[in-house]
Amino acid sequence: MRRIAVFTSGGDAPGMNAALRAVVRTAAWNKLHVYGIERGFEGMIDGHFQRLERRDVANIIQRGGTMLRTARSKRFMTPEGRRAAYDHLKAYDIDACIAIGGNGTFTGAKIFSEEYKIPFIGIPGTIDNDLYGTDYTIGFDTAVNTAIDAVDKIRDTADSHNRLFFVEVMGRNSGYIALYTAIGSGASSVLIPESETDLEDLKSVLRKNKARGKLFSVVIVAEGHPMGGATGIAEKIQHELASMEPKVTVIGHLQRGGAPTAADRLLASRLGFAAVELLMEGAENIAVGIVNGEVTSMPFDDAINKQKIPSDELIRMASILAI
Amino acid sequence: MRRIAVFTSGGDAPGMNAALRAVVRTAAWNKLHVYGIERGFEGMIDGHFQRLERRDVANIIQRGGTMLRTARSKRFMTPEGRRAAYDHLKAYDIDACIAIGGNGTFTGAKIFSEEYKIPFIGIPGTIDNDLYGTDYTIGFDTAVNTAIDAVDKIRDTADSHNRLFFVEVMGRNSGYIALYTAIGSGASSVLIPESETDLEDLKSVLRKNKARGKLFSVVIVAEGHPMGGATGIAEKIQHELASMEPKVTVIGHLQRGGAPTAADRLLASRLGFAAVELLMEGAENIAVGIVNGEVTSMPFDDAINKQKIPSDELIRMASILAI
Amino acid sequence: MRRIAVFTSGGDAPGMNAALRAVVRTAAWNKLHVYGIERGFEGMIDGHFQRLERRDVANIIQRGGTMLRTARSKRFMTPEGRRAAYDHLKAYDIDACIAIGGNGTFTGAKIFSEEYKIPFIGIPGTIDNDLYGTDYTIGFDTAVNTAIDAVDKIRDTADSHNRLFFVEVMGRNSGYIALYTAIGSGASSVLIPESETDLEDLKSVLRKNKARGKLFSVVIVAEGHPMGGATGIAEKIQHELASMEPKVTVIGHLQRGGAPTAADRLLASRLGFAAVELLMEGAENIAVGIVNGEVTSMPFDDAINKQKIPSDELIRMASILAI
Amino acid sequence: MRRIAVFTSGGDAPGMNAALRAVVRTAAWNKLHVYGIERGFEGMIDGHFQRLERRDVANIIQRGGTMLRTARSKRFMTPEGRRAAYDHLKAYDIDACIAIGGNGTFTGAKIFSEEYKIPFIGIPGTIDNDLYGTDYTIGFDTAVNTAIDAVDKIRDTADSHNRLFFVEVMGRNSGYIALYTAIGSGASSVLIPESETDLEDLKSVLRKNKARGKLFSVVIVAEGHPMGGATGIAEKIQHELASMEPKVTVIGHLQRGGAPTAADRLLASRLGFAAVELLMEGAENIAVGIVNGEVTSMPFDDAINKQKIPSDELIRMASILAI
Repeated sequence: MRRIAVFTSGGDAPGMNAALRAVVRTAAWNKLHVYGIERGFEGMIDGHFQRLERRDVANIIQRGGTMLRTARSKRFMTPEGRRAAYDHLKAYDIDACIAIGGNGTFTGAKIFSEEYKIPFIGIPGTIDNDLYGTDYTIGFDTAVNTAIDAVDKIRDTADSHNRLFFVEVMGRNSGYIALYTAIGSGASSVLIPESETDLEDLKSVLRKNKARGKLFSVVIVAEGHPMGGATGIAEKIQHELASMEPKVTVIGHLQRGGAPTAADRLLASRLGFAAVELLMEGAENIAVGIVNGEVTSMPFDDAINKQKIPSDELIRMASILAI
Repeated sequence: MRRIAVFTSGGDAPGMNAALRAVVRTAAWNKLHVYGIERGFEGMIDGHFQRLERRDVANIIQRGGTMLRTARSKRFMTPEGRRAAYDHLKAYDIDACIAIGGNGTFTGAKIFSEEYKIPFIGIPGTIDNDLYGTDYTIGFDTAVNTAIDAVDKIRDTADSHNRLFFVEVMGRNSGYIALYTAIGSGASSVLIPESETDLEDLKSVLRKNKARGKLFSVVIVAEGHPMGGATGIAEKIQHELASMEPKVTVIGHLQRGGAPTAADRLLASRLGFAAVELLMEGAENIAVGIVNGEVTSMPFDDAINKQKIPSDELIRMASILAI
Repeated sequence: MRRIAVFTSGGDAPGMNAALRAVVRTAAWNKLHVYGIERGFEGMIDGHFQRLERRDVANIIQRGGTMLRTARSKRFMTPEGRRAAYDHLKAYDIDACIAIGGNGTFTGAKIFSEEYKIPFIGIPGTIDNDLYGTDYTIGFDTAVNTAIDAVDKIRDTADSHNRLFFVEVMGRNSGYIALYTAIGSGASSVLIPESETDLEDLKSVLRKNKARGKLFSVVIVAEGHPMGGATGIAEKIQHELASMEPKVTVIGHLQRGGAPTAADRLLASRLGFAAVELLMEGAENIAVGIVNGEVTSMPFDDAINKQKIPSDELIRMASILAI
Repeated sequence: MRRIAVFTSGGDAPGMNAALRAVVRTAAWNKLHVYGIERGFEGMIDGHFQRLERRDVANIIQRGGTMLRTARSKRFMTPEGRRAAYDHLKAYDIDACIAIGGNGTFTGAKIFSEEYKIPFIGIPGTIDNDLYGTDYTIGFDTAVNTAIDAVDKIRDTADSHNRLFFVEVMGRNSGYIALYTAIGSGASSVLIPESETDLEDLKSVLRKNKARGKLFSVVIVAEGHPMGGATGIAEKIQHELASMEPKVTVIGHLQRGGAPTAADRLLASRLGFAAVELLMEGAENIAVGIVNGEVTSMPFDDAINKQKIPSDELIRMASILAI
């Protein structure tokens, strides 16, 4: 193995730059040449490669986003697209690829590596934390901290006005960000796709809280909640709770950005480091992860097809501490 | 003068606590007794008064929201409401009031003080900065910093994906937050109620920017923009700009909260201090403010009826620097 | 079990309030009465107890410091002090205690509970992360994020001036904060008490970096480094590195404060919750912790006497990624 | 006028990048060519010039430090150094220069422009705010916010332990940062070079505060205080205040870094914009500034030789509000 390529793909996540830095420097330490591919599979198809040396990844560990940019690629889902991508990898004499992204990225990597026999290692980078095979994905801790910081601010005004707030956080298919944000911000309630939502129950909790002297309430709703996110939930019950002056806030895309937290920088550094070491040892077509504090890996198939869901213990604790 | 009351009213703004602290401590220094009224005119009507001494306002200068809570009061618009308020002020033997809030608060104060001959001093507290008679209102600097911090984060993801973002910031009747956020975040364009918006022009600017190599664009829109805020604008033009993958984000209520910035703490301290000093000198029915760095004051009538609008120079500069 | 007491002791750490909230609310849920003791063992000796109900711990999850204050207590090391403490516990009819603190706190708890047969549960709260029996202590994640944020800022100026900075972070006996800060901030080198420091080696690394085109360097030093912290190290080698304009910064006590991070709020919530549940199940004289993501517990003796040290793998990775 | 050069010099300050961006874009708008000079006068002597176009200053408005780096230059104090600098300016056909920095930078610019008849415009960039001719310098607002944020954190721990903290903030010859930090953080006392310090008075204030029930105290000391900064002050009086467990923290270089605040981005944008416009109108050898909200300018001589000092009103207010 002499030359590897690395790219980011799918949604961006804070810490992707820290992972790129770790890949490039670990590879350099091991005398490998690294090429960065711009905009994920799109750049692979279009031949947008650049040599990355140690100094090229200096001073990026603290930056949100990804210096290689990212994209979703429809063309890569076609045989023609993948063929073009392969031709470019060959032209640059690439022996293996490291892909930083989520489920869609791993799926693309798996299909491609089976077709063209080029080893891939996946690094889980997505704020949603919905990937099996790792306790945390790169970007999740930052997104949760950003969401909690927003709720801390909203609480100032909720508290000043004795109001009820429905706050929507990201998570299209997953309630991780919502659950962690709710616990961390001391929210009254949390509604996630992985648990049944009983609106009668919710109304009763909110009313009981008010009766107990709680002056304001914040309800955290996952973006992907089947009743239509925070807006959908609020529409269904706001009339009955009109005296609490309900308001809706959708925190939105700012959850994807910002300087990565310590934990995300550390996680990204460890996974980037491990990905290169595993490649050197001959691993292929696996996703790396951290489970119980230790670096692990698993076949793409498992990472893609198995589902990770928030623990019942945390959900139960959230409801007890909220009272 | 021996006893004064102080309250916050209308929308809350970061720095209101710093103003309360300054009022209480300056009054204590001048041997006045201070009563805090909860929830603005509502608490005045309901008799929710509490004695505030120096230590009661310790450790609040850094807190968002307002320790006295705030509200809008429909009852205070009725003669009966104001009568009840007056009775409570008399019961507590209050000689004068200091009201922290915006236009509606000052209007209530003016009507009441004319009816019942109780001197009022107004302190401009609103994130919108739309009050005449002061260069800045308490909370504005914090709201702008919060909005810019959000746009900095959104830029990470906009940059990573080569996208177009329409970002809505607060300002129901005023474009101050939008204009300052746009300049401070280096946005491509800013749309405010005080200026005509030409959508053809906007589209042309965005396309030209792209042609010049600008990889992403952020357009800041004031909440009160007559075309329906960021959502309204985006709906009108997103189809024609589909290749830029336009997204909408409404930053929302978090702009009202958070620890006040240095400038808001200083402004609030100076205005709270000045309000008490002016009361001691016999002033009444005026709003205090800072103009050109100096504390000033003006009759409620002027503060309420005159309009302050963003300078053309800043608007022009914003468009030149955005290119 | 009907009545429990809770207190914070030793150095304060962000997240202690979140732990107090979790203890009080979990206890309330389980129909226990809770008393908060002010200033740790000092308040136990002096009888400073207060009833804590659900609403008393509202709106504190986001606050640094500890609402019960904290102290180190020399008097508690004497039999007379502990006797007085016991008398107050009896007077309030306390059945068990939950102590939030570090090694010294656990030692006091162990001695006391052996003497007076009152069950204690310890919750590890210290920014230093130097307690055995838990992967992370409450406050560590916040302290590391604060230190990294400071280094991010110092890097702006180090980068602008091509300078060498020695930055001292907290950790009197432990290099955890230093190591995590170094990895997270991409520092050139890290010096901790747990590893040998070879100054010749350090100088050679710094010179090599400069020769390779690295424009500035940051060296992280643990407060407890045996050569005298950052100041001591800098004094020894700054003359030989004079061309790099070395500077020393001691980040200091601000690492102890600030709103706790998401991870610290979650950790504190889980440990406070678990402590009460374990008490209910009859546990005594143990410290709770999180190991590999799961709540665990161990006898005070182990928590006090066994040593936890940073992993060699992380130390090695830090040096490879720094190049 | 067709070609101008711009550079940053002396100590770096947050917002310098925003000023560079404004200069480059305003110049481009006016069809001027801009060259950036690296490391201030050093780069002018060594011929380190680079063409800066609009896109080169994209995405830097939010960055601390300065993309052109900065330095102090001894060589520029010699005729030979200035001669070499002149030769490079001529080689690049530069018609005028814009210098961003503090007093030393302006002095160098004045001497040089008198010697070689090349027009200079100075933009005040220094965190210390000690330049005459402008109400605020670029970087001051950010430095004050950073210092206040640090004191907010220190207060968490001071409050938890009932302690006395001496906190040193930057300001080698000037107490602006200290005074604003003290007001904004609600400090008990502030010691600056511009006012006499009476240690007996300080001790008496601290003791009186304690007697009044104030549980902790923070004293802000300017770096340049003639008694030796915070360390010097603490040494003199800590024994007499031993019961308050005095601690010293020097906030240090992190005050120079970080993303600039809204106010600094706006100030830097306005001053950069104005500098180019004034050059186009034929101005030379002046420093721009903002006085009473309006852009102004004054001859270098005045900016260099006149002294700006904090207002007595603010100092008096700080002491009244602290009680």
